[in-house]
Amino acid sequence: MQVITTICELKEHLKTLQGSIGLVPTMGALHKGHISLIEKSVKENDFTVVSVFVNPTQFLPNEDLDKYPRNEEGDKKVCELCKVDVLFMPLAKEMYFEDEPLIKAPAKIASILEGATRPGHFDGVLRVLNKFFNIVRPTRAYFGKKDAQQVAIVKNIVKTFFMPLEIVPCDIIREADGLALSSRNVYLDEEQKLSALKLSRSLLKAGNLIKSGEMDSNAIKLEMKKILEPLKVDYVAIVDREFREVSKVELENTIILVAAYVGNTRLIDNIWV
Amino acid sequence: MQVITTICELKEHLKTLQGSIGLVPTMGALHKGHISLIEKSVKENDFTVVSVFVNPTQFLPNEDLDKYPRNEEGDKKVCELCKVDVLFMPLAKEMYFEDEPLIKAPAKIASILEGATRPGHFDGVLRVLNKFFNIVRPTRAYFGKKDAQQVAIVKNIVKTFFMPLEIVPCDIIREADGLALSSRNVYLDEEQKLSALKLSRSLLKAGNLIKSGEMDSNAIKLEMKKILEPLKVDYVAIVDREFREVSKVELENTIILVAAYVGNTRLIDNIWV
Repeated sequence: MQVITTICELKEHLKTLQGSIGLVPTMGALHKGHISLIEKSVKENDFTVVSVFVNPTQFLPNEDLDKYPRNEEGDKKVCELCKVDVLFMPLAKEMYFEDEPLIKAPAKIASILEGATRPGHFDGVLRVLNKFFNIVRPTRAYFGKKDAQQVAIVKNIVKTFFMPLEIVPCDIIREADGLALSSRNVYLDEEQKLSALKLSRSLLKAGNLIKSGEMDSNAIKLEMKKILEPLKVDYVAIVDREFREVSKVELENTIILVAAYVGNTRLIDNIWV
Repeated sequence: MQVITTICELKEHLKTLQGSIGLVPTMGALHKGHISLIEKSVKENDFTVVSVFVNPTQFLPNEDLDKYPRNEEGDKKVCELCKVDVLFMPLAKEMYFEDEPLIKAPAKIASILEGATRPGHFDGVLRVLNKFFNIVRPTRAYFGKKDAQQVAIVKNIVKTFFMPLEIVPCDIIREADGLALSSRNVYLDEEQKLSALKLSRSLLKAGNLIKSGEMDSNAIKLEMKKILEPLKVDYVAIVDREFREVSKVELENTIILVAAYVGNTRLIDNIWV
């Protein structure tokens, strides 16, 4: 495995590769969720590039950029074990310039839910991904469905910017008890981890209600909110795959999402039905 | 020559080409200025794609989008004669989507001169060029130095977005009397064409002053403004090749620019010294 830190070196190395390239863009602190993306990429492509970059432009001023978990040595071991070809770990000063164009995320799809709570977050996500896509020129790029709105917005930029790559959404990986894996779970103590289960349980409840024939969004959201109590809920939402709110669940075209605070930690989770 | 109007068809056709691709993005109404770009591209690349697209997003609401000169049949003939491989003439509805990311041109370099008079203009230019670059994936793209600030801003996006292509700036083509060629010259009547010569003459004067050893920007600008009278001058500027205003001319690193109105028509011109 090549560990590369400069864009120039990466471009030179990529020139030597003949075949399909899978890109797994991450912020490091790799866990089983990331591993499932990496394994999928390794399986589906001739070469896999994993990027580890805690992207400053997608954090809001009051967010956890400084304390975001970092584990460079662990990330290297994970990538090595997964047979990654290139681990790319650039510095921010490599990625950004003093005077450069900005990207404004799509007005509609990026202004709701995560976009409403974290204004500017998706601008930063697209700003860095656009660079990664141009540098690596991957055949496919892999994203976790846990960041469901991000998946929709990344698919939007690929389509509307006419980028020649395929976005591959990957299933959420959960602990045995249902907690969706997240690098931010390290912020939770044992008691908070129990409280955090309310998110996945509320979604399990939603899934069961739908199986029993309940398709009314408001009715489902009401039951979910009962389970989420007493957590501070940011949103409970039921949208179609283009992230338009829907009043009725339509099977194979619906995503149910929840965002809530456990202590000071903001957690998100969702199911695709 | 292939005349292609849909992105899908263009992408399919490009897949069949093996070799370097030169892109000449234009708004049509092709004149000798464009022809010099096209000829350079044909000479330097295995294949040349000329795009003709009057890009609505780079016109301000009060500008001349509706009356901008169009000459589809003439453009086809010019491209055919120049041995262009692909003439791409998309519709706006092919290029733009209802909800898509926007590009904000670099804050510093795009807010002065043309950017100050035409706020949003460069956002629209970069928005469409980013799409063209992703669709065509050219080896080189050709731009006229007449739009000197555009050249600098396009070079900026290529560098900061890590786009794998080379920007080739091409010399300004002038009428025998010095008037820089522009599609907008058709707006001028014979008398206005004579007034328009004040722009190139002011630049000729600047060049002569520099040859005689005058390097002080203010002194040069003063002489230029005398020649431009009584035209309504938008700006006279002396900048380095990164478009920072300079108080002294530095040879091989200076651009002298002028923008002025002849009647209702806004004209620009410049020299690189």
